[in-house]
Amino acid sequence: MYNMGLLGLGTVGTGTADILLNTAGRNPLLQKIQIKKAGVRSLDKQRQVELPADVLTTDLESVVTDPDIDIVVELMGGLEPARSLILQAIAHGKHIVTANKAVIARYGDEIYTAANEAGVYVLIEAAVGGGIPIIKPLKQSLGVNRIQRVIGIVNGTTNYILTQMTAHGADFADVLKEAQELGYAEADPTADVDGWDAADKISILTSIAFAGRVKRESVHCEGIRQITATEINYAEKLGFVIKLLAIAEKMSLDSDELQIRVHPTLVAKEHPLASINGVYNAILVEGAPLGQVMFYGPGAGSGPTASAVVSDIMNIVGILESSGKTKNLDPLLSCSHQHYCTLQPIEELVTRFYARFLCYDVPGVIGHLGTSFGNHQVSLESVVQIGFKDKLAEIVVVTHDVKEGNFRKALAEIESLDAIQSIPSVLRVL
Amino acid sequence: MYNMGLLGLGTVGTGTADILLNTAGRNPLLQKIQIKKAGVRSLDKQRQVELPADVLTTDLESVVTDPDIDIVVELMGGLEPARSLILQAIAHGKHIVTANKAVIARYGDEIYTAANEAGVYVLIEAAVGGGIPIIKPLKQSLGVNRIQRVIGIVNGTTNYILTQMTAHGADFADVLKEAQELGYAEADPTADVDGWDAADKISILTSIAFAGRVKRESVHCEGIRQITATEINYAEKLGFVIKLLAIAEKMSLDSDELQIRVHPTLVAKEHPLASINGVYNAILVEGAPLGQVMFYGPGAGSGPTASAVVSDIMNIVGILESSGKTKNLDPLLSCSHQHYCTLQPIEELVTRFYARFLCYDVPGVIGHLGTSFGNHQVSLESVVQIGFKDKLAEIVVVTHDVKEGNFRKALAEIESLDAIQSIPSVLRVL
Repeated sequence: MYNMGLLGLGTVGTGTADILLNTAGRNPLLQKIQIKKAGVRSLDKQRQVELPADVLTTDLESVVTDPDIDIVVELMGGLEPARSLILQAIAHGKHIVTANKAVIARYGDEIYTAANEAGVYVLIEAAVGGGIPIIKPLKQSLGVNRIQRVIGIVNGTTNYILTQMTAHGADFADVLKEAQELGYAEADPTADVDGWDAADKISILTSIAFAGRVKRESVHCEGIRQITATEINYAEKLGFVIKLLAIAEKMSLDSDELQIRVHPTLVAKEHPLASINGVYNAILVEGAPLGQVMFYGPGAGSGPTASAVVSDIMNIVGILESSGKTKNLDPLLSCSHQHYCTLQPIEELVTRFYARFLCYDVPGVIGHLGTSFGNHQVSLESVVQIGFKDKLAEIVVVTHDVKEGNFRKALAEIESLDAIQSIPSVLRVL
Repeated sequence: MYNMGLLGLGTVGTGTADILLNTAGRNPLLQKIQIKKAGVRSLDKQRQVELPADVLTTDLESVVTDPDIDIVVELMGGLEPARSLILQAIAHGKHIVTANKAVIARYGDEIYTAANEAGVYVLIEAAVGGGIPIIKPLKQSLGVNRIQRVIGIVNGTTNYILTQMTAHGADFADVLKEAQELGYAEADPTADVDGWDAADKISILTSIAFAGRVKRESVHCEGIRQITATEINYAEKLGFVIKLLAIAEKMSLDSDELQIRVHPTLVAKEHPLASINGVYNAILVEGAPLGQVMFYGPGAGSGPTASAVVSDIMNIVGILESSGKTKNLDPLLSCSHQHYCTLQPIEELVTRFYARFLCYDVPGVIGHLGTSFGNHQVSLESVVQIGFKDKLAEIVVVTHDVKEGNFRKALAEIESLDAIQSIPSVLRVL
């Protein structure tokens, strides 16, 4: 038997305990795992899983220091005391399983350095993509390729909001409110709608796919608050849907420099990511010689996340079963890189853009747009006058691939034109 | 360093060697792998990879018996001598990596029994889904769930043919010919178009997902030769596309009995599998508490398949690095089940059906259809008269869920009606 200590018995903790207490029909290895202690905030709370009374404790430190415990599973969320408890557990020789993307994205360096010294695993399948197996496939399978690009829809809340906006032509604020009522969005939705959660997740995916640590605060991050029904409509007419994408990519095969970014993006309707709807997540990985693979599934929720958590626990037990308590880690499951990835500034990004202009004088403006874009090496794929709004003409432009810095300079020039009333929207195109 | 022996240096063998000889930008663990011997049919053939002359040999036995070789990678295909060489390699204590679905689907029992005795791994990521990581995720992650269903588009040739038929309204024979010219179909396309290859693959997926061996010859298997442009057209009008699906499912949660089958299937356009086109593959896995996850990617080709092969090699090396040459296998990567899955006869399958009738007398027929279906507890979701063909009326019926045996009895009764000229098509609906 292997003893497990659980930190946190909320939604995911309850789901995790539920799988481990009901092993019939699942991998038989799960029968060798026992929940020895579960650290909780209150002993009196009504719980949906039945654990023996002596398993529950409010003394979280006693969980991470218990000499009989082999694996500590951290499901409290938040930065502290999660980070300190993980570090303490590692110092006591425990293997770690966690779903805590925020802690890993911010303190991965500290945590993995400690784990490597102690010879323990820190597995994080549940931190990205809920129930979708993505972390282990990236580590164990896809790494034989030269990875060029990882693109994910990794935040269910924003994907739900954008899907509803697209389906019903509704505005952001209304859908957010509805999502909050349905429990798909938090009372304080900032981390989701401003892209921070997605930025945490792409930082983690990048560190695995490109084998280097990532400074989380360097990830370029834009949320979806500024997306309106108008934009979704125009995107639709041009053959696109709008998705919040988290992207890490090598802009050139010769260079190690990466672009890592989170922003709402126009995705062509035929693209595999365009049909990922609602709270589902998907992660697309592109590499050579593999080409493109995509992983799709439920990005959140008690059951899916617990499935990922327990898969990590089971993997550690599988290794302990075969190798005994050796301190040599499987290099494919541990994290041996020390250096930080070099990130390119967003100005160096090469991408297509969508921009909408409100203007007074259509024929004049199109000429000016052409000149200003031309001055900055921006070539246009299409210029469409889509309609009128309050007597102003709306012109929508989609560019060819262009350096972001050049595009921004052209925009600044255009903004100063007399014929331009405003530029209500600028979005990148995948 | 770990020494590898390669059997076969065709398309996939060349792709595999190419990755291992060019490790820059890939997982650094690959630098510890060396191709010691490569067994080939002819030494004189021009090759696209440069291997030292003393690596190539026509003496295949010398590869599997070489005491310095740790891992034998079988990429010859075909049943013999592949099977015998794999068994011989196992007897000499080599770990095995193979892409050979035919051998594993037929001789998995013999091979895994020998491997367990010898304490070696037999990894088969490349046998199903080309470059898509599916075997290891099933073994290592998804098995914590109670698996209910595995549904795959696992044959690229038939998916290409059906996609082309759908896009261009073309007939099977024409598209097959074109696929053969493009190299997407073999000169003898039997194994693909009659569903045998998909049946091999679903046998393998089943044995992992449901932890029991499968008698390959018991898998119900129908190919796509009988699919016409007419059927694709009618399916389209009803909101479906036609896909060759390989399905393994538990019909009831209380029973261990499985339905395993390969057949062309109507898939609703909104279903994630409906948009998997061309030579791409996808595998959807459904379980509790996970829900549905789907894996999508290139189902064949040198690069993708080599990516899967090398991922297996790398996993074995990762384990050897951490555990040394212990003979305890990681239970998640080995194959410990001994029993055979119990399969239900296809008559017990509960599914929806699509059927097209050619008939003389429409009003009379609809009444008769209703009566005959009613006699056998078949309830209808829709009855549509779609057109006329050579003065015969075409009636298309889609049923609700019904036991296949009952449906077939109703069909037999209907076939004998005077008003019915023929029943040109009967297909299952997902």
